[in-house]
Amino acid sequence: MSRLNIASSRLVAWVLLTIAGCGTLLAQENAPMVRLSRLVIDATQLEAYRAFLTEEVNESVRLEPGVRTLYAVSEKQRPTHFTILEIYADKAAYEAHIKSAHFLKYKAGTQDMVTSLELIDTVPLVPDMKIK
Amino acid sequence: MSRLNIASSRLVAWVLLTIAGCGTLLAQENAPMVRLSRLVIDATQLEAYRAFLTEEVNESVRLEPGVRTLYAVSEKQRPTHFTILEIYADKAAYEAHIKSAHFLKYKAGTQDMVTSLELIDTVPLVPDMKIK
Repeated sequence: MSRLNIASSRLVAWVLLTIAGCGTLLAQENAPMVRLSRLVIDATQLEAYRAFLTEEVNESVRLEPGVRTLYAVSEKQRPTHFTILEIYADKAAYEAHIKSAHFLKYKAGTQDMVTSLELIDTVPLVPDMKIK
Repeated sequence: MSRLNIASSRLVAWVLLTIAGCGTLLAQENAPMVRLSRLVIDATQLEAYRAFLTEEVNESVRLEPGVRTLYAVSEKQRPTHFTILEIYADKAAYEAHIKSAHFLKYKAGTQDMVTSLELIDTVPLVPDMKIK
């Protein structure tokens, strides 16, 4: 193979890899974002926390088309332990959510109630699964 | 108060408490059952496990009206760690589910793949929350 041919082949390979890389990045940007939040709440402020969280999830789902769900549960054996399944249409929907008035109200109002917060990025097994 | 009156009052109180207790039990039987299952899977059998679980959740939601969702996610940082949000219409729906052919196939097929299983009974914050 001539030097020119080798150079051309490398150029073609580089262009293809770059296109593939951009495609992957774009797909990630547009993919649904699915997260588990695990929280532990100060027991003396549990009822106040539940009120803040209830308002926040209801407002988010009602007002934001890109918030597909915020399904929150507390454990029967440990009522201070919450898990929230959070599904956003894409990263932009999540970025808009954390700037919304209702989220900022919740965040400010509960900052002294949350004793532990763990954010876990996940991959859904069946992305179009719903709740009947 | 006469002895008869005291006895009557106690009888009335006992009857009311019994009725209230039965009502609570009945309400629990008819209430939705919401659970988190947390599983850790043998890394060498992960793809086989994902295939079993995908079939099982799809069949359950398709065939069983009382299975409202089985929303399964795996963690991005630890792909062997799964969490499933399980919502059943009531306890009877759950009892029927664990006797179904598709659940028994999944259970038998994956028993050597699951290295840890934690079942956590929960209370939903907003029981009529959906996934848009």
